[in-house]
Amino acid sequence: MLETTHLLKSFDRVTDYWSPKVIGRVNDQYLKVAKVKGELVWHAHAEEDELFLVIKGRLRIEFEGHAVDLDEGDMLTVPRGVRHNPVAEEECWVVLIEPVSTKHTGDVQTERTRTLEEQLR
Amino acid sequence: MLETTHLLKSFDRVTDYWSPKVIGRVNDQYLKVAKVKGELVWHAHAEEDELFLVIKGRLRIEFEGHAVDLDEGDMLTVPRGVRHNPVAEEECWVVLIEPVSTKHTGDVQTERTRTLEEQLR
Repeated sequence: MLETTHLLKSFDRVTDYWSPKVIGRVNDQYLKVAKVKGELVWHAHAEEDELFLVIKGRLRIEFEGHAVDLDEGDMLTVPRGVRHNPVAEEECWVVLIEPVSTKHTGDVQTERTRTLEEQLR
Repeated sequence: MLETTHLLKSFDRVTDYWSPKVIGRVNDQYLKVAKVKGELVWHAHAEEDELFLVIKGRLRIEFEGHAVDLDEGDMLTVPRGVRHNPVAEEECWVVLIEPVSTKHTGDVQTERTRTLEEQLR
């Protein structure tokens, strides 16, 4: 029997900022939820696009030379290879869609980098 | 400059039931929005999972031998190869995530089958 997942309720699993949790999979992509506040880190994913959908709050995604602001309900796909840095002044809830192979801090390893095992918990 | 898409507002593009519109892409997957009412058709996608997320209303997905009910905010991935039939008693708004190659009526061609060109309009 297939089981449904409630998108909003799955944010209950998130206990730390910048620590995404995998809530679903479709083909080779994971859906993840994350609560974010402050900034992550400048990074890129060489081979992988990453989609951001803001559920609550506001998210700014900084790019080299400009930035894009996402309000509640807005989504944006960051194309592969594009350096970016997500920033949230206040707590923001986001859905991420990215390949199962993606590291959320891309080519950069920081104290914020979470293993897949941590994201599946 | 990258442009954001507002998830709810993009339902404005939907003028007919069972006629999905592509609103975004991440890697080899499309995000689509659709308004549905009544039932689609029994079908399967041999090689492709399909994710349903209910934004408004209720959706029942019939499977052989059982059914799964999705309320607002619920999501479910129908695994590849599994025959299913989406049914909505009242108008229901859904987000679909599926490969760019997916035909929304899968292995079945009906009057409801929409070309990709129609879905991109």
